[in-house]
Amino acid sequence: MPETIPPDSVGIVTPEMAVFDEPLHLECGKQLDSYQLIYETYGELNADRSNAVLICHALSGNHHVAGYHSMEDRKPGWWDSCIGPGKPIDTNRFYVVSLNNLGGCNGSTGPNTTNPATGKPYGPDFPVVTVSDWVASQARLADSLGIECWAAVIGGSLGGMQALQWSIQFPDRIRNALIIASTPKLTTQNIAFNEVARKAITSDPNFHDGRYYEHNTYPSKGLMLARMVGHITYLSDASMGEKFGRDLRNQAFNFGLLDVEFEIESYLHYQGERFSKNFDANTYLLMTRVLDYFDPARKHGGNLAAALKGAKCRFFVASFTTDWRFSPERSEELVNALLEAKKQVSYMEIDAPHGHDAFLIPTPRYMDVFSAYMNRIAEETKGAS
Amino acid sequence: MPETIPPDSVGIVTPEMAVFDEPLHLECGKQLDSYQLIYETYGELNADRSNAVLICHALSGNHHVAGYHSMEDRKPGWWDSCIGPGKPIDTNRFYVVSLNNLGGCNGSTGPNTTNPATGKPYGPDFPVVTVSDWVASQARLADSLGIECWAAVIGGSLGGMQALQWSIQFPDRIRNALIIASTPKLTTQNIAFNEVARKAITSDPNFHDGRYYEHNTYPSKGLMLARMVGHITYLSDASMGEKFGRDLRNQAFNFGLLDVEFEIESYLHYQGERFSKNFDANTYLLMTRVLDYFDPARKHGGNLAAALKGAKCRFFVASFTTDWRFSPERSEELVNALLEAKKQVSYMEIDAPHGHDAFLIPTPRYMDVFSAYMNRIAEETKGAS
Repeated sequence: MPETIPPDSVGIVTPEMAVFDEPLHLECGKQLDSYQLIYETYGELNADRSNAVLICHALSGNHHVAGYHSMEDRKPGWWDSCIGPGKPIDTNRFYVVSLNNLGGCNGSTGPNTTNPATGKPYGPDFPVVTVSDWVASQARLADSLGIECWAAVIGGSLGGMQALQWSIQFPDRIRNALIIASTPKLTTQNIAFNEVARKAITSDPNFHDGRYYEHNTYPSKGLMLARMVGHITYLSDASMGEKFGRDLRNQAFNFGLLDVEFEIESYLHYQGERFSKNFDANTYLLMTRVLDYFDPARKHGGNLAAALKGAKCRFFVASFTTDWRFSPERSEELVNALLEAKKQVSYMEIDAPHGHDAFLIPTPRYMDVFSAYMNRIAEETKGAS
Repeated sequence: MPETIPPDSVGIVTPEMAVFDEPLHLECGKQLDSYQLIYETYGELNADRSNAVLICHALSGNHHVAGYHSMEDRKPGWWDSCIGPGKPIDTNRFYVVSLNNLGGCNGSTGPNTTNPATGKPYGPDFPVVTVSDWVASQARLADSLGIECWAAVIGGSLGGMQALQWSIQFPDRIRNALIIASTPKLTTQNIAFNEVARKAITSDPNFHDGRYYEHNTYPSKGLMLARMVGHITYLSDASMGEKFGRDLRNQAFNFGLLDVEFEIESYLHYQGERFSKNFDANTYLLMTRVLDYFDPARKHGGNLAAALKGAKCRFFVASFTTDWRFSPERSEELVNALLEAKKQVSYMEIDAPHGHDAFLIPTPRYMDVFSAYMNRIAEETKGAS
């Protein structure tokens, strides 16, 4: 809880809800007849509506990107470090929009919301969505807000995939794509870790084939395991080592087969348990599938440059040295394809010890590069208005 | 099943059982009043008993290291690639001993064998053993075989920890320690992955606090998950990518939340299921704890060189470039401590694409280096006899 709102915070914010009644045709062949998206906005849309920025969230993210919902909030939104007055995404200059994606569990239509066809939660009947479906739904949100063209679409990790997809799917509606700690497709190892997470959830007897809502329960242990695996892959070996080392819970070993011995074990338990209480298991399954499926080159015989041919925006790509989930090589794969497709691209590999999580951490070099790029967009936007 | 036994195989082998009635005092403070160790031997012990080599197994290994138990065997022992006539561990020259460690599940006393105090399987009452306890039990096996001093103790991964511990615990009973793809202690990340595996097993409702034998069941899903996680860490990102890429099970995506989409998923399921049918869950818990606990420097304030001070043998240390479970840096940590302690050490980082599993794969450079070192031991042994 902040005693006072910091001067570089967007302050107290209130989510809004957008309702869509026109059917959304999905890549899986199904459609959603109607749906709602919860979103937040910070800053002011300028007169010519040219300063709007879309923030796309990653696996476990949501619409609450910056600021506080009340003075009782323990923490601000998940990317507060980068969004606010004077921050890289400067709300004095940009109108920032963030939403909870379709299939999410924080207010937008998803597995834990009511299926109008049955009056019960969708559960496993919620259609499998893709990054492309998300971008289509985000475009409708843009329409409803009167935004014809984003000054920038920005995201880290799975969020970066959405920014990339925007550049391909709506080349005339995006001026800059900022793709941070992301990849143009998952590796085999990425998919393998996702499958461990899914299997942990679906193996939990409380999963009930995804209809756990009707049993007044949820697969807490499976979700906890899924998060534990995920969490390990978000951190670097070195940063875990620095934080926890081989520190013990007690002075000496207990030598009990079922005892907690090391600090890292109780940290992972804590993270896993907390997450399992706040996140929907079906959404977790869905989000990992969205990650697995993303591969814009697939429709072009694996040729990513061909997939990017129609893109018109400028690209900002950033990776982090110790990120082994989406390593710098994956960003370079994208950068090389962008160069081959003769697109404008800025690329920076940032030296940071935090692994994949580095994209959320305001290390000075990262903030400087990010700010400089956003500043250029703001200057151009001012000129255009 | 081999149609004929290959000429470089040790052929058909038969396990033997050694029974020990003298109590073994364990590091955890408990003791085993009696226990048995299942083992195999290949080759002939020479007249002065100077050509004996001990092979130590890793997490899921056992005593069946080379050859076949019958002509119906589908596969030979787990390190057949390195052990046999003319192979790096040449059974024409060495007398090779391998055992299933205490706490294992392949015939030696462990959680799945009968506790004489209760007449039921030990289950979770089996005491937590350590690498040091194993080495003590292996020394008794050596006594029973009339082996005063090993020409070499050899192991990969957890097996390498045993070779290292031999050099410290019985400096006069080992002439060479071969420590391959191993580490002087687990990193935080290593422990974290082990904890995910343990939590998967203990969260399975069929675990019954480790007393699943009495319920005629076992935690198959938990053990499957544990193996899936483990398996990912044994392989390199690149080798998984080369083998499975993003290949689909079907021609196109199914878009079903619970469907298997990618080949890597069904491969992991297959590996996990097969393993869960053949391995004991309590042993898995125990083996991961043995790994976590190992840290010979701990008793010396973290000074590994001090821990190694009394060692008298020569050391052979090998690591593999793509091994991210026990990376070359971990082997270098050991090599540096050995140098600081003024020990004789040969070190080789081998370029191999297979990740941690590389220690089981007979890549030419690895075989050449391994053979050359073993050849020197054999030459010296011959001279001594």
